[in-house]
Amino acid sequence: MKSLPGKESIIVPGFTFASASAGIKQIGKKDLALIFSEKPAVIAGVFTTNRIKAAPLKLAIENIASQKGQAIIINSGNANACTGEQGLKDAMSTAVKTATELNIPVNLVYVSSTGVIGRPLPIDKIKKAIPGLVRDLSPISIHDVASAIMTTDTFPKTISKKIRIGNKTATIAGIAKGSGMICPNMATMLCFITTDISVSPGALDQALKESVNKSFNRLTIDNDRSTNDTALVMANGILGNKLITKNSPIYPKFKKALNEITYSLSRMLAEDGEGATKIIEVTVKGARTEAEAEMAAMSIANSMLVKTAIYGNDPNWGRIIAAAGYSGAEINEQKTSILLNKTQLVKNGVGTNKEQEATKLLSGKEISITINLGTGSNTAKVLTCDLTGEYIKINADYTT
Amino acid sequence: MKSLPGKESIIVPGFTFASASAGIKQIGKKDLALIFSEKPAVIAGVFTTNRIKAAPLKLAIENIASQKGQAIIINSGNANACTGEQGLKDAMSTAVKTATELNIPVNLVYVSSTGVIGRPLPIDKIKKAIPGLVRDLSPISIHDVASAIMTTDTFPKTISKKIRIGNKTATIAGIAKGSGMICPNMATMLCFITTDISVSPGALDQALKESVNKSFNRLTIDNDRSTNDTALVMANGILGNKLITKNSPIYPKFKKALNEITYSLSRMLAEDGEGATKIIEVTVKGARTEAEAEMAAMSIANSMLVKTAIYGNDPNWGRIIAAAGYSGAEINEQKTSILLNKTQLVKNGVGTNKEQEATKLLSGKEISITINLGTGSNTAKVLTCDLTGEYIKINADYTT
Repeated sequence: MKSLPGKESIIVPGFTFASASAGIKQIGKKDLALIFSEKPAVIAGVFTTNRIKAAPLKLAIENIASQKGQAIIINSGNANACTGEQGLKDAMSTAVKTATELNIPVNLVYVSSTGVIGRPLPIDKIKKAIPGLVRDLSPISIHDVASAIMTTDTFPKTISKKIRIGNKTATIAGIAKGSGMICPNMATMLCFITTDISVSPGALDQALKESVNKSFNRLTIDNDRSTNDTALVMANGILGNKLITKNSPIYPKFKKALNEITYSLSRMLAEDGEGATKIIEVTVKGARTEAEAEMAAMSIANSMLVKTAIYGNDPNWGRIIAAAGYSGAEINEQKTSILLNKTQLVKNGVGTNKEQEATKLLSGKEISITINLGTGSNTAKVLTCDLTGEYIKINADYTT
Repeated sequence: MKSLPGKESIIVPGFTFASASAGIKQIGKKDLALIFSEKPAVIAGVFTTNRIKAAPLKLAIENIASQKGQAIIINSGNANACTGEQGLKDAMSTAVKTATELNIPVNLVYVSSTGVIGRPLPIDKIKKAIPGLVRDLSPISIHDVASAIMTTDTFPKTISKKIRIGNKTATIAGIAKGSGMICPNMATMLCFITTDISVSPGALDQALKESVNKSFNRLTIDNDRSTNDTALVMANGILGNKLITKNSPIYPKFKKALNEITYSLSRMLAEDGEGATKIIEVTVKGARTEAEAEMAAMSIANSMLVKTAIYGNDPNWGRIIAAAGYSGAEINEQKTSILLNKTQLVKNGVGTNKEQEATKLLSGKEISITINLGTGSNTAKVLTCDLTGEYIKINADYTT
């Protein structure tokens, strides 16, 4: 199912990008990337809720209090997590070397890592590769950065959007990588968004958090959350628009555009879930509260039995209602209905005997599950993918 | 790995057992079973916490308030869940027919079902088979009952224990079935325990609940909880011992024996987890509270990444510490240690580079994971199994 993203060139004014093979992964594979803004940008970030945080996140969480950033350096192939004092030193010297080569203050450099946990970062290789990375910075290389940050991803994930702000045309571009260890609260998920819009730190931070809550935090591949999840957005203001604040009339439009970027990236992550053959959108309706709708949707999306049934083109709705039943959300069995794609399988808590019809529709690649809990009027959507033998293969020998 | 349990004959004085092929599953497969006590017994039960409960559970939950029972009739191949009013009628007429044939009051009959959700129970086939089932009751048929209640189980699960009570020798025998949809709160798990001990309803109820909490509720195969989970214990008092109450000096001994029965059955369920090749015991130590220890142990035991790593003989401890980190339990990274079997892989939050040694040990069938969170002195153990391609195969086409 893996579709290559459009390769149309994406330019975000004032930003340049580069990637390199530093030798962290196998020889010849891209594993280091740099995003640079020609002037210091406003930055906002969201980080994993895992209590075990990788070394670079510890630095970034300190740095981001300043709400300023100018460069993000990312390596794949090594998470620099559970690496103790040495890990912190390595993250710091990555930042120092990058700052030196870019000739900017070190506190404007953010470091991000993804890959295996618990191995020392090959810091010498990284430091050696940084000068070349800086030399190679180019406005057209965002696709290469999206490739260099991949781990088990099968395709790079990029998306961009142009919006009118006053009489100017602004650009927002996002890249992300997955694709295992993905769950609410952002699993081994890295996302970097760049824009030329001028926006206040408070508005950028709020817009990012709200977007992440409706996109990456409503995506689950395998219910595992990583030590390294990071979403960063840099806004360099080069567009020259009137500063957007939380109260600006244009703010909702900006937030909507950011939502669309993170939601599109979430869909790509679900599509590229490890071993996935189908993308599944779970919609819960008729819940008492939005929180209960989300609980029920997450419960269904995380159910291994539901995910394997979808893989097997099996309209086994009993597993769907059971997962809703143990989610903690209130459910009124006598009023529950379930649709699989467009086929109504359950009405008032009882099967409609339309499994055969549903089985045919399940052979497609986009599956929607809709359940009405019959207890209220609230809704939530969660994205996931099916669970396949390929997932097991990928994860049974990832480090070996 | 599936080892057949001992086939030594188990006799529980005053109890008889029978099984039959009623035609609910394919022709010739056992799918109906009966457990009968020659005199009314004290009964205690624990049922699923899933808000969607199968029809027979709705009846049983009402019945059990009387704390009396004499017969349990169990069918496999059909869960009689999400079957609406008809499902309730079918469960009731199963009870009525059984009571009539046994010539006992209907409220002493408990009905239990396991299998596919949402299909009408083939009630005529069941009613037709009941007279033969009653005719076949025999003290030596407990193994056959354990076989007849299986769904995707690969072996029947029985265990018995004799304990001295005063100058008498008492018998406690348990049977159970799994093996998918298993998680805390007792997933598609049925367990029936019979004993000749005389015990008060309150003591029996308390002993069962405590045993279930430390055994079945600390077992997870795939984090799914079913609509049908049931554990029932019947004590008919035929031993003639002095009635055991919660305050009897012998009560702790009785409870310990019951614990051992439920724990042994839990281990068999983990061993027979769908597609499993290894049984995994997760021990969390050094937690602030027992609840946090259990949260962390469950989080590790439910991690698909941990379970696939163990399947792949891969000592990927990063996935273990990450799962503990997102469990919600407090963890002190600098004091965390991890042992895989006897090999210490992490000390003070940093890897010890003993992966090669651990890989060798992982080829065995019994794996222990021990993690110390470094935040207190509390402990919990959880049982699980590895996650394999076979699990996917079993569940991708269970109903089709």
